[in-house]
Amino acid sequence: MRQSELFTKTLKTVSAEEQSINARLLERGGFVYKNFAGVYSYLPLGLRVLNKITGIIREEMNAIGGQETMLNSLQDPEVWKRTNRWSDNEVDIWFKTKLKNDTELGLGYTHEEPLAELLSHYVNSYKDLPLYVYQFQTKFRNELRAKSGLLRVREFLMKDLYSFTRNEEELAEFYEQAVGAYLKVFKQVGLGDVTYRTFASGGVFSKFSDEFQTVCESGEDTIYLDKVTKIAVNKEVYKDEVLTELGLKKSDLEEVKSIEVGNIFKLGTRFSEALGLAFTDEKGQKQPVVMGSYGIGPGRVMGTVVEVSSDDKGIIWPENVAPFSVHLIELPGGDAKELYSALLEAGIEVLFDDRDASPGEKFADSDLIGIPWRVVVSKKTGDKVEVKRRGDTVVKLISQTELLKLVK
Amino acid sequence: MRQSELFTKTLKTVSAEEQSINARLLERGGFVYKNFAGVYSYLPLGLRVLNKITGIIREEMNAIGGQETMLNSLQDPEVWKRTNRWSDNEVDIWFKTKLKNDTELGLGYTHEEPLAELLSHYVNSYKDLPLYVYQFQTKFRNELRAKSGLLRVREFLMKDLYSFTRNEEELAEFYEQAVGAYLKVFKQVGLGDVTYRTFASGGVFSKFSDEFQTVCESGEDTIYLDKVTKIAVNKEVYKDEVLTELGLKKSDLEEVKSIEVGNIFKLGTRFSEALGLAFTDEKGQKQPVVMGSYGIGPGRVMGTVVEVSSDDKGIIWPENVAPFSVHLIELPGGDAKELYSALLEAGIEVLFDDRDASPGEKFADSDLIGIPWRVVVSKKTGDKVEVKRRGDTVVKLISQTELLKLVK
Repeated sequence: MRQSELFTKTLKTVSAEEQSINARLLERGGFVYKNFAGVYSYLPLGLRVLNKITGIIREEMNAIGGQETMLNSLQDPEVWKRTNRWSDNEVDIWFKTKLKNDTELGLGYTHEEPLAELLSHYVNSYKDLPLYVYQFQTKFRNELRAKSGLLRVREFLMKDLYSFTRNEEELAEFYEQAVGAYLKVFKQVGLGDVTYRTFASGGVFSKFSDEFQTVCESGEDTIYLDKVTKIAVNKEVYKDEVLTELGLKKSDLEEVKSIEVGNIFKLGTRFSEALGLAFTDEKGQKQPVVMGSYGIGPGRVMGTVVEVSSDDKGIIWPENVAPFSVHLIELPGGDAKELYSALLEAGIEVLFDDRDASPGEKFADSDLIGIPWRVVVSKKTGDKVEVKRRGDTVVKLISQTELLKLVK
Repeated sequence: MRQSELFTKTLKTVSAEEQSINARLLERGGFVYKNFAGVYSYLPLGLRVLNKITGIIREEMNAIGGQETMLNSLQDPEVWKRTNRWSDNEVDIWFKTKLKNDTELGLGYTHEEPLAELLSHYVNSYKDLPLYVYQFQTKFRNELRAKSGLLRVREFLMKDLYSFTRNEEELAEFYEQAVGAYLKVFKQVGLGDVTYRTFASGGVFSKFSDEFQTVCESGEDTIYLDKVTKIAVNKEVYKDEVLTELGLKKSDLEEVKSIEVGNIFKLGTRFSEALGLAFTDEKGQKQPVVMGSYGIGPGRVMGTVVEVSSDDKGIIWPENVAPFSVHLIELPGGDAKELYSALLEAGIEVLFDDRDASPGEKFADSDLIGIPWRVVVSKKTGDKVEVKRRGDTVVKLISQTELLKLVK
């Protein structure tokens, strides 16, 4: 797209309230706009990044058999009372609202209840299982304090997948497949090297849950990490007996700060029993469905990528989630229009800086926005182009044919 | 996809409360699930249709220069008080909620205010305009009575585009482009022949707004239609002086029932003045931005397609919005697995009924779900296949090669 047509502009500064790297750089670059505390709008550049991330997640969820749906935000209290999660005493992050006739409704902060209720109308027999159902859907969480930019917000898109299996073994098998899919997602979005499966507290139905924690100095969480086995333990379960059980030695573990970018839970039959989600097994016996839940917040992933991948000039987007692959910059004396067309024709995503602005301003904006390849056409470059990788210092003069090969 | 893996099943009946054709067929076919009055979940088949419709709309919005964003549902009252649309006395469809500290928030029922406020941070000069910004975003409307299935709901996806122009002429020019884009959308989703640009009440800043009304017996609206000029007038402006102004004769007009599938408004400067969205013109004068708004609800479009395109056996999806192109049915003695692979390889979207069910059940389900091409492989068909168009009665026996050509 032509940058002259993009409605956002980069900003020199943002409110001093915004202290996190991700909020400051994403607002300055024109990726998001802060409406008020914990509520951000996605602008064209930001939505492109978000869509790249959801695309990667969708592919991996489909690969492990996920069926995509889209449930609602408005929640019927009756369904939630059956699992004892309606009362504000039990769940302190509900946003609640009312119909005209004063009936109370909630805004979904997760979707175990409505999905289990829904599936109780479709699941009858062991032949109907296992099932894996997911969605990308907006969650509302009434956080006391929103903070850290996109990392803790009050309204956000979430990929939530739920597994419905016949027994604990089938759950365990799918759960490990989901771990694999999650690790693939984090690898593809550029967080693979610093994201670790992390044992965390399991709640009522399971000894452990698993978090995916990205090591990052600005993180809110503390984990203990074995860099050799690539296994980590959350502070809340960092106890001698747990380490022994997991075969980890205290001396191998390093205490680091981290950001939780995903979490998965074995839920057992808590929700299915309460909501009447049962099946008839091979022997004709009614059995409750065994459930699991698997979450990733694409916006939090986006914020985390910025936290771990930036420098003092701006963001450094990993290839797969960058809003564009190429930032084509036209400087005085150069004409990049034909190259722009050639790149588009080759199927390459290009932001074309055709603005009437100084070279210094264009370079500074390019560093801030952080697109992987910066390509300059100017009087100096003649029939060649100057190409530089964001984050690198090496600048190369190459032909347009070489460029097309390079960035494809 | 293999139908044996789809978690939904067709239903013989639905609640007698559901009286509309769209709700009854979409629930029976497993496209949507009714959570409670006015709140529907989209199941895999329904989400596929919804995504087809949003894809068509997105393409047309991009073609007229739209830039895609994603704003929030949670709304800051301060922004809405500035346009006098916060109070329940002024706007009676708000859902409201509260933060932990008792600050009231709203759930967006439209987005003129937050988008104008947002753009006031990016628009300064006449050079920054015109701008066209849109989103696909969930709207919440506290309707006293939800009814007619997907046609009047309390939570729904909406495509809302807003135009920001320098003057009335520029608005008028874009407005007509938007009319053209809307007509293209309705043509592509299969409603072209029965959808009419309809003059309606314009509110404070304009004599008329335009609705797009689909003629349908079950519609809630009444319009007066000139079938020759393809222009209609909403009942609310069906007055002698209006007809004269539009050059319409009462004798040429037919009173028909219809469903509003889109509407567009000239907003003038009401919102921009209240929210400080202004630009400096060529002469250095500050001017308020001239706005327009343009809405289509993809879910309502989906419901409308079903209202106008079904028979007593089920839905008849138009090609472009069908969940799949081909419903491949394997009957006893036939083996359709290779053909299934061949169709997938050719890039055709196929629902493969590989279930262990009777031919009668499979045919009935196929008619209910309404995929355009029904292809049967059985003992009888030999090395050929039996192909039938949904809604047609003609059944043809053709070779697999011919089939691939036919459905491509």
